[in-house]
Amino acid sequence: MKNKINYNAPEDIKDLDIVNLFELEREAKNVLPKDGYDFICGGAGDEYTLERNIEGWNKKGILQRVLADIKYPDTSTTILNQEIKLPVIVSPIAAHGMAHESKEAGTAKGVAEYGGSIMSISAYSSVSFEDIEKGLQGNNRWFQIYMSDDKEVNKNVIDEAKAVGASAIILTADTNVDGRRERNIRNKFIYPFGMPIVARYLKDGADDTSSDTVYSRKKLNLSVEDVKFLTDYSDLPVFVKGIQTPADAIKAIDAGVSGIWVSNHGGRQLDGAPSSFETLEGISNVVQGQVPIVFDSGIRRGEHVFKAIASGADVVAIGRPVLYGLANGGWKGVKSVFEYFEKDLKTVMQLSGTQTIEDIKHTPLFEYSK
Amino acid sequence: MKNKINYNAPEDIKDLDIVNLFELEREAKNVLPKDGYDFICGGAGDEYTLERNIEGWNKKGILQRVLADIKYPDTSTTILNQEIKLPVIVSPIAAHGMAHESKEAGTAKGVAEYGGSIMSISAYSSVSFEDIEKGLQGNNRWFQIYMSDDKEVNKNVIDEAKAVGASAIILTADTNVDGRRERNIRNKFIYPFGMPIVARYLKDGADDTSSDTVYSRKKLNLSVEDVKFLTDYSDLPVFVKGIQTPADAIKAIDAGVSGIWVSNHGGRQLDGAPSSFETLEGISNVVQGQVPIVFDSGIRRGEHVFKAIASGADVVAIGRPVLYGLANGGWKGVKSVFEYFEKDLKTVMQLSGTQTIEDIKHTPLFEYSK
Amino acid sequence: MKNKINYNAPEDIKDLDIVNLFELEREAKNVLPKDGYDFICGGAGDEYTLERNIEGWNKKGILQRVLADIKYPDTSTTILNQEIKLPVIVSPIAAHGMAHESKEAGTAKGVAEYGGSIMSISAYSSVSFEDIEKGLQGNNRWFQIYMSDDKEVNKNVIDEAKAVGASAIILTADTNVDGRRERNIRNKFIYPFGMPIVARYLKDGADDTSSDTVYSRKKLNLSVEDVKFLTDYSDLPVFVKGIQTPADAIKAIDAGVSGIWVSNHGGRQLDGAPSSFETLEGISNVVQGQVPIVFDSGIRRGEHVFKAIASGADVVAIGRPVLYGLANGGWKGVKSVFEYFEKDLKTVMQLSGTQTIEDIKHTPLFEYSK
Amino acid sequence: MKNKINYNAPEDIKDLDIVNLFELEREAKNVLPKDGYDFICGGAGDEYTLERNIEGWNKKGILQRVLADIKYPDTSTTILNQEIKLPVIVSPIAAHGMAHESKEAGTAKGVAEYGGSIMSISAYSSVSFEDIEKGLQGNNRWFQIYMSDDKEVNKNVIDEAKAVGASAIILTADTNVDGRRERNIRNKFIYPFGMPIVARYLKDGADDTSSDTVYSRKKLNLSVEDVKFLTDYSDLPVFVKGIQTPADAIKAIDAGVSGIWVSNHGGRQLDGAPSSFETLEGISNVVQGQVPIVFDSGIRRGEHVFKAIASGADVVAIGRPVLYGLANGGWKGVKSVFEYFEKDLKTVMQLSGTQTIEDIKHTPLFEYSK
Repeated sequence: MKNKINYNAPEDIKDLDIVNLFELEREAKNVLPKDGYDFICGGAGDEYTLERNIEGWNKKGILQRVLADIKYPDTSTTILNQEIKLPVIVSPIAAHGMAHESKEAGTAKGVAEYGGSIMSISAYSSVSFEDIEKGLQGNNRWFQIYMSDDKEVNKNVIDEAKAVGASAIILTADTNVDGRRERNIRNKFIYPFGMPIVARYLKDGADDTSSDTVYSRKKLNLSVEDVKFLTDYSDLPVFVKGIQTPADAIKAIDAGVSGIWVSNHGGRQLDGAPSSFETLEGISNVVQGQVPIVFDSGIRRGEHVFKAIASGADVVAIGRPVLYGLANGGWKGVKSVFEYFEKDLKTVMQLSGTQTIEDIKHTPLFEYSK
Repeated sequence: MKNKINYNAPEDIKDLDIVNLFELEREAKNVLPKDGYDFICGGAGDEYTLERNIEGWNKKGILQRVLADIKYPDTSTTILNQEIKLPVIVSPIAAHGMAHESKEAGTAKGVAEYGGSIMSISAYSSVSFEDIEKGLQGNNRWFQIYMSDDKEVNKNVIDEAKAVGASAIILTADTNVDGRRERNIRNKFIYPFGMPIVARYLKDGADDTSSDTVYSRKKLNLSVEDVKFLTDYSDLPVFVKGIQTPADAIKAIDAGVSGIWVSNHGGRQLDGAPSSFETLEGISNVVQGQVPIVFDSGIRRGEHVFKAIASGADVVAIGRPVLYGLANGGWKGVKSVFEYFEKDLKTVMQLSGTQTIEDIKHTPLFEYSK
Repeated sequence: MKNKINYNAPEDIKDLDIVNLFELEREAKNVLPKDGYDFICGGAGDEYTLERNIEGWNKKGILQRVLADIKYPDTSTTILNQEIKLPVIVSPIAAHGMAHESKEAGTAKGVAEYGGSIMSISAYSSVSFEDIEKGLQGNNRWFQIYMSDDKEVNKNVIDEAKAVGASAIILTADTNVDGRRERNIRNKFIYPFGMPIVARYLKDGADDTSSDTVYSRKKLNLSVEDVKFLTDYSDLPVFVKGIQTPADAIKAIDAGVSGIWVSNHGGRQLDGAPSSFETLEGISNVVQGQVPIVFDSGIRRGEHVFKAIASGADVVAIGRPVLYGLANGGWKGVKSVFEYFEKDLKTVMQLSGTQTIEDIKHTPLFEYSK
Repeated sequence: MKNKINYNAPEDIKDLDIVNLFELEREAKNVLPKDGYDFICGGAGDEYTLERNIEGWNKKGILQRVLADIKYPDTSTTILNQEIKLPVIVSPIAAHGMAHESKEAGTAKGVAEYGGSIMSISAYSSVSFEDIEKGLQGNNRWFQIYMSDDKEVNKNVIDEAKAVGASAIILTADTNVDGRRERNIRNKFIYPFGMPIVARYLKDGADDTSSDTVYSRKKLNLSVEDVKFLTDYSDLPVFVKGIQTPADAIKAIDAGVSGIWVSNHGGRQLDGAPSSFETLEGISNVVQGQVPIVFDSGIRRGEHVFKAIASGADVVAIGRPVLYGLANGGWKGVKSVFEYFEKDLKTVMQLSGTQTIEDIKHTPLFEYSK
């Protein structure tokens, strides 16, 4: 256990009365070790893109509609033929152990208890598939892979992911090198946990292999060949995550993906980029429904879910909100976050005259005249 | 009296020396119970739309005009053939009791003493029609309805509104579900008063029926059928309030309304929307004078009244300013607010070269080049 | 002397080391009575337009030019055939006594000692023409008139202005009613001085007639007839001051003016207007050199002088900067302000590749792409 | 030594752990005398252009690219056939002695130890060519000239520059008069050091001749003749530094320059200008690769290097960052600054899918829709 350090993660398990997710973030700051909070909340560089991910929502307006005969809007939808009761799923996030002692098992239980969402399991989870399954109890799960430069490792983790029932593979393609996250540099941050899913297959073996070792084996030069390998080897639907341009969306589709995952990695990778939302419409215009689009980076309100879907997303994914729920309330907190989104999205749907998720897709947003 | 709680509303009755309404708001904060002030001043979500309702005025400029031969501008106008001396009327507002112990009767008296405006009476008033009439003394009044899911209730309140002389019906169409008003959530706000106008007709009867009960009976799925019902049953001119899109303006006109009420409910319903002012011109362009337009959400100065009318409104309505006047000075404070608007609008008219309200309608605003 | 109140104006006479005019404003705040400072610095309403008068300069960029063979730029120019050594003149300002005990005589001496500018004498000066002449010592002067509703008064003051050598008349056309200046309302401001130039001709006579009386006799409904009267009666070139639209510039030219004075009265009249600079180019485009253009409202730096001239102005006028110079250093302070502008403008001209004022007129500004 | 004053420059020599350059600037503020820090960090006028030099980077977005098969991006490039390992060189900066007691020799050693950049030697260096050479140890150097009004002086310094191996001449063309730097005015700043490179050739001789004397002999009216003189006399490639317009770029090329140096002198000259970055694309569009473009003013991150190159620059130059490195760590600090840029640029290249500097040139930036 080379890089294990003392890390006092929160342990509370409780339902949360969420006013909004910005307040939940502040509360998470109070309960998390500083380096853990900074790791989660921080972005790259000036954190310009991180902030723009939020402010960018105001580039377009959502409008009240009246006399639309809406009652009890329905938030259920499907993606890859999987039924979910809310178009909000869990983004792949490394090291949930930073947020709560229950780690990914806590998140998984929150998702399972909410019912009707999808858990993305990160290759860099703090715990093994087996521990996650304890929480997930059979619910939907996708597996996110950071490719190793050792092809056998990749095969092994895919085999294992399939064995535990992953129904899709998410290739994170925007993190072949880490963004310059200055909070971590200032804190001289090191991961307090190992990464057992990948580590056990590295040549030097033990499941406590340090994060540094895992990192050092990350494949840098991802290409369409990697997409083809994943598609062929896994025989599962593959998403490429980190799409920010129409060109890359086309490239990914040509390489055979089953879905596009629009994301700027929560502003953690390339600072000076536009908000992820600002890139969505252009991408959606070229994808034209050939494959589903998952959107992440900056989702904090039902309003944001609505605007993303009205701009071409099929579902959205949330990362930090899940960890803030986990930090403040363990699995119950995660469940509370999903309930918050459901309630808030329904309010927005009722006020904007949309009965179903499909209706949202056909709702024009307000284009500011300047 | 299930939800009556102790609530210490202000009781002062005095003329106000109003510098501007933002200062009056700060003074209202000082005299009101915190939860009451928050209820009145707050908006939905991030309060982005609430703030934009004010900042949005600066999207267009008003220009000084010279040599225009203007002397003593005339602010009088008519709407629905009712003569008013200022194109500023009272928006329907629930629960004036939150602002002053005189409740709606105080507001009504302020309007009556000012003379030449219109009082909108909310279905969710804190007092009965009879009590309001004590203040209103025969002055113009319109009745605003939140539709109940019980059609008999709607008929009863309309019958009563007509009996007390309401000359128009305002259907609030943007509040079939309440916006997410986080101040109220934080304060665990509950209404300190009943809503006697509606409550007496609910099946469980007594006029002290709690707000919760009234709320729970609100009709969610408003449609053009409701407009037609109101028009047919009441035989009064009907406004649909909460119009924010050209499409809904057309829909309302097709359903037979006598007026369009452009509003985003003071930023209290759907956050992430543009300012109400930003939506006005597009709506006005499709209405093309077929029916009058009332505008609200963000009116705080004569400048705003001017800009709204120059962008297509016939009259504007004020909500919070009325309550801030009421809170600080009872009925005299309400009168002071109208006097403030009259004086300020006259100054703007003199400086912009407009002798009459009709002149304002033909005044182009300054379009910023970027 | 009905409205004389105790007012302790500064008395210091000294050269000023001006870093910039914003600092000079802060220093003026330190030496002036609060109500006097607020009267001078304040604007109308939210002071949005006041602030935009400054921020608006950044709507266009000025660009460095190189290899332009510039040495010792020449700031001299002419207006109405009067030679001045700097395209910066004194705006008409009421009541210089608010700034310094030397009143307008101090300003006049500062202008005279600088040499080569033009003093605008306000009809609402704190002192008589005779006292101003003591400082002005034969230098250029224009006379600004607020029209009285008594034509004889107007004739008398014009006769007197001509007798003391005024070479142009400025009709202030944007102040037939005062803007809503909230600082003054809060301070319950009243003028501490009489207005002897106008007051002596009012029917009730004495030169200490109060400002209130003078104000109450102001003509509200200015029109092209007033321009024609001034032109005919005075036989002097007439400017209309307060032009903010192309339409009014054409109207004024049609009425026979010899010059257009673009101004929003320093943001003191109609709040919610664009910056005066933003209106200049459109006006200049219709004036097309038929008559000269004076520009004011927001000039604080040589950069601003440059941008105004590059956008169509022939000379600019300064108001508050003169009073801040006067407040801090009496006539020497006023002279320092002109020296500051001369030095700063020369630096800008050297760096922007312009040898003469005429060169500035042909210099395109940078249009931001968004 | 007329203007030598007591100046306590930092003396530390140490490697720096640079989080970002804004933090390094704050640290420099802590170790530098106030007037020295203000001299370095300050800009002209309101410092609007200084700030916009940074904020202006956000006028365009850089986008993540995926599946681009990038591994270990290569930052090496060439300019004027000189190979450098990073497209970041040292801007000509006067008086490095303000930052560190090792003066230009320290900077030179930092550049030499980093290896693979270019040192620009200012005519207004605090030390002689010989002292600089002690640090530079044979590395690339260009010589920047402020033209003297005495042609013989210019010839002498060029002769000497050539003798010490300068491989290009940079004509600073935007500083024939100093911008209005208000910090210096407030501090009554005078240079604490002489300017030996130029001073020794002035007629009154001694190498301790004051900066004032050197300044007073600066040639004001630069023109294309000066470019021709430099080109002819030096037989070296000549850059004109301070280009901000397409017109001047063409003029300089017509005059025979070997390179365009786009710069607004770090916001120190003409305030009210756009950011230097905003001017780059227009210039690049007319230069069309005829000569290389060096860009400076506002480079603080790898992101900025990337955006400048993607907009047409061949290399960028840094000024203040070099002095902040020098102030905090002497030559080791300078080396750390270059290492910071190399690491950060490589991260940006990896994430944006660019393997080489040439690739960056063909990468479109994100154009915001408003």
